[in-house]
Amino acid sequence: MRTPHDPDGWVLDVRLTSPSIQDNTADVDRLRRAICRQLDVDWVDVDLDLARCLPDFLRNAGYAVRCLVFKDRDRALLIDVQAASETPVWIGAAVDLGSTRVVLRLIDLFSCTVLAETAFDNPQIAFGADILSRIHHADLPGGAARLQQVLVDGLNQQLGELCRAHGLATTSIGLIAMAGNTAMSHLVAGLPARWIIREPYIPAVNRFGLLRAHDLGVAVNPLARVMLFPCVGSYFGGDLVAGILFAGLHQRETIALMVDVGTNAEVVLGNRDWLMACAGAAGPALEGGVSSIGTMAAPGVIDRVWVDPETGGLAVHTIAERPAVGICGSGVIDLAAALFSAGLIDLRGKFRPDACGDRLVIDNGHPYFILVPAEASGTGRALRISQADLDSLIRSKAAMFTILETLTATMGLALEEMPAFLVAGTFGSFIDPRSAITIGMLPDLPLERFQSLGNSSLGGATLVLTQRAALRHVDAIRDGITYMELNVNQEFMNRFSAAKFIPHTNPSRFPSVKPPLR
Amino acid sequence: MRTPHDPDGWVLDVRLTSPSIQDNTADVDRLRRAICRQLDVDWVDVDLDLARCLPDFLRNAGYAVRCLVFKDRDRALLIDVQAASETPVWIGAAVDLGSTRVVLRLIDLFSCTVLAETAFDNPQIAFGADILSRIHHADLPGGAARLQQVLVDGLNQQLGELCRAHGLATTSIGLIAMAGNTAMSHLVAGLPARWIIREPYIPAVNRFGLLRAHDLGVAVNPLARVMLFPCVGSYFGGDLVAGILFAGLHQRETIALMVDVGTNAEVVLGNRDWLMACAGAAGPALEGGVSSIGTMAAPGVIDRVWVDPETGGLAVHTIAERPAVGICGSGVIDLAAALFSAGLIDLRGKFRPDACGDRLVIDNGHPYFILVPAEASGTGRALRISQADLDSLIRSKAAMFTILETLTATMGLALEEMPAFLVAGTFGSFIDPRSAITIGMLPDLPLERFQSLGNSSLGGATLVLTQRAALRHVDAIRDGITYMELNVNQEFMNRFSAAKFIPHTNPSRFPSVKPPLR
Repeated sequence: MRTPHDPDGWVLDVRLTSPSIQDNTADVDRLRRAICRQLDVDWVDVDLDLARCLPDFLRNAGYAVRCLVFKDRDRALLIDVQAASETPVWIGAAVDLGSTRVVLRLIDLFSCTVLAETAFDNPQIAFGADILSRIHHADLPGGAARLQQVLVDGLNQQLGELCRAHGLATTSIGLIAMAGNTAMSHLVAGLPARWIIREPYIPAVNRFGLLRAHDLGVAVNPLARVMLFPCVGSYFGGDLVAGILFAGLHQRETIALMVDVGTNAEVVLGNRDWLMACAGAAGPALEGGVSSIGTMAAPGVIDRVWVDPETGGLAVHTIAERPAVGICGSGVIDLAAALFSAGLIDLRGKFRPDACGDRLVIDNGHPYFILVPAEASGTGRALRISQADLDSLIRSKAAMFTILETLTATMGLALEEMPAFLVAGTFGSFIDPRSAITIGMLPDLPLERFQSLGNSSLGGATLVLTQRAALRHVDAIRDGITYMELNVNQEFMNRFSAAKFIPHTNPSRFPSVKPPLR
Repeated sequence: MRTPHDPDGWVLDVRLTSPSIQDNTADVDRLRRAICRQLDVDWVDVDLDLARCLPDFLRNAGYAVRCLVFKDRDRALLIDVQAASETPVWIGAAVDLGSTRVVLRLIDLFSCTVLAETAFDNPQIAFGADILSRIHHADLPGGAARLQQVLVDGLNQQLGELCRAHGLATTSIGLIAMAGNTAMSHLVAGLPARWIIREPYIPAVNRFGLLRAHDLGVAVNPLARVMLFPCVGSYFGGDLVAGILFAGLHQRETIALMVDVGTNAEVVLGNRDWLMACAGAAGPALEGGVSSIGTMAAPGVIDRVWVDPETGGLAVHTIAERPAVGICGSGVIDLAAALFSAGLIDLRGKFRPDACGDRLVIDNGHPYFILVPAEASGTGRALRISQADLDSLIRSKAAMFTILETLTATMGLALEEMPAFLVAGTFGSFIDPRSAITIGMLPDLPLERFQSLGNSSLGGATLVLTQRAALRHVDAIRDGITYMELNVNQEFMNRFSAAKFIPHTNPSRFPSVKPPLR
């Protein structure tokens, strides 16, 4: 069954009048003229390799063709042509270029529907788990090329496997949209990233233009183009620009706050009239990297923790309901909230020995709270969280809240009156906003104002491959963002200190958070 | 001695402010911003290979650089960068892509001065002397690639030799501008030319866009671009668009007529408000291909013929004043004019036996006029012209005049009132307008209205490499030309018949042409 044509995408049906003595426009110019009309542009770039085939191709197709096009700023670009009578074949690849995980989505460009999706560890991890060490590696002789190669090799392998599994040809991939942070965007393009991390923190390029897949070594249609989302600066990358596009922040009438949480917390505030952004270190605590038991979501990983209303003790849920082996990011936030609600920690986040009883143990002089005893765990060892882990989480949540507050206050707005709060990424998909409010990480808003965006970078990349109109917004979003350098001054430190309490030094800002049970 | 910088060319001096926390624009975007300001454009394309080098390069150069740029429609293009402190090195190559001869000119892009020039036989001649047989060859398997390769090989060899002879590096060549007829433009780009010669005569491409030298196989700077002049149609090519640019026809207030004579006579009429063109077969007679003794200019070749006022007989001048070995195109027109003035031919162009005396011989039943007797010639044989040669010349000149008259009449203008008459090419450089008027090939205008343009295609190609403003006119010229299909109807045939007399069936149209001496 043929999927219906989505006329808003990049596949155009083009019917040309046949040439005659009266209309002797050249073949390529004839096709160009028709595409110009359909896309309302003045020019269509046609690669020489394609132009060489077009005259015979157009005649064989009776001048009724289907075109894969794209836009490069104000001009269009012809990527491939097929006869209108053939089955549509073109595929787009949307890529969320995470420094840890790369997510890849294949899209049927004719119907603008998702065909397949996969994710894989960023192969650059072999040269450094964190982005900083990769940038240092890129500085070694041949380093940038090596990092670029290993990533593109991984991409090619995954594209190949995903296509094979779905009976698709990689040469059908004519468009790729990639969104990554500024460093990743540099590393995938083989651009020098060394100045990103050195004062005054200057990227090589923020606006990459449209790249040729061939120039990057991506093994797809030889004329395929790669759209790499533009970055705003060293600390505000194309992944966030894609996220804003996906969230539609730039089109909203009312103001919204959008947050993407990783090692950095990246925050954008605004609406269709203005966009204000900042980014700051929140620490690894919010990513599940808080403790020795913190881990990625997998069977047996604790994803929910709550206070059992009957016993007043903690209850946990594990993924696939298997014996507990660890705890993921959302679980950690739940855990902290539950510890507070159950009165097991005080408002500074310190264990209360009297309340914890024998769940609290001292090991090597450090206090630990036993979440799952050894006999109930899937590892044979007790799952426990240390006071140090909790302290780290408190610092992270305080940093996060302070960043939100600072940005909002700069614009003269009150965080508690935010009409909409959008949370991007895995973090946004899994955290329970109620728990995040309880520990004072997110402001105390009615729950319906929180919206989880999912993988908004991938969503933005998908949008530019499926909606012609979306692409137009990308540069406008980038150019419209005012990036605010976070000034860690006395005011910031005062806010941070106040936010280091649960939920806050001023509990009246969190009226919905009930005091501990005991 | 350093030649002065021509600020109207494609080499820009760009001084950037160094990046700072306050102005943290990315390196490539910083350079782009400065170029945008200087060229008044919105965007500068920067190849990935160049972008990768720029951050370190800009820092080493203290952000004071010299850029080689070009324009691709409304956007600029960065081709190369050097430190402002270095000696400027960039070279442009202007190419007149003739089907018989290719003329190559090297230009210093910093000072916009000519460095060197050479010409060579189009190596495609090995696959066919005329363009038609080359187009047929291009249809064979691999034929188009072969024709493209042999031409580019020749170009590379000549570029290499010319550079070596002048102490230049071919990798310094960053810009190439080529002008050729429609078929040659296709053959150099490896585009299929087969539909050019088949009704309804459709080129593959008329507007080639900007090509990469690398994609054509031209061995110069790897990022160099090739500007191939756009064509109007199968019979009006980029060579003429370049010619119009060079002649400034599109900028004149008063009307002018421009003629390029080869096997085809191509004619453009107009001014800054409109341009009307047509082309028609004039036959090889006007190129010196009129007779067995017709040849290219070389020592011993007759380039001037006149009536000796003392003897009333013919006098000749040879190039380098060596014994005569042949006659070139301009000599043939002089010869016909002198034969007429001396009363040796009648107004139909037929030899008058009584007047010719023993200079007229019959060989194999065909009459010949002996121009140089065997004992005076450089070949040991008499140089002679046949009645058939002369008939052919008369037909050619009549076709030429008819084309001029038809185009002019279509616009309601009188040929005899043309304010300016521009003659392009070798033909224009060497013919004596007085002789051309005498035989009725050119209209009887005051001699000062005739202007020889020289190699106007090469001139146009040079202009786009040396004057940024010139490039802007190219598309406007192309788009502004109305091409008139020559309708060989009764009116055309009537005009042609009237023009087959010397100077014309109506001698009052040629008042300056004196009747024969006897």
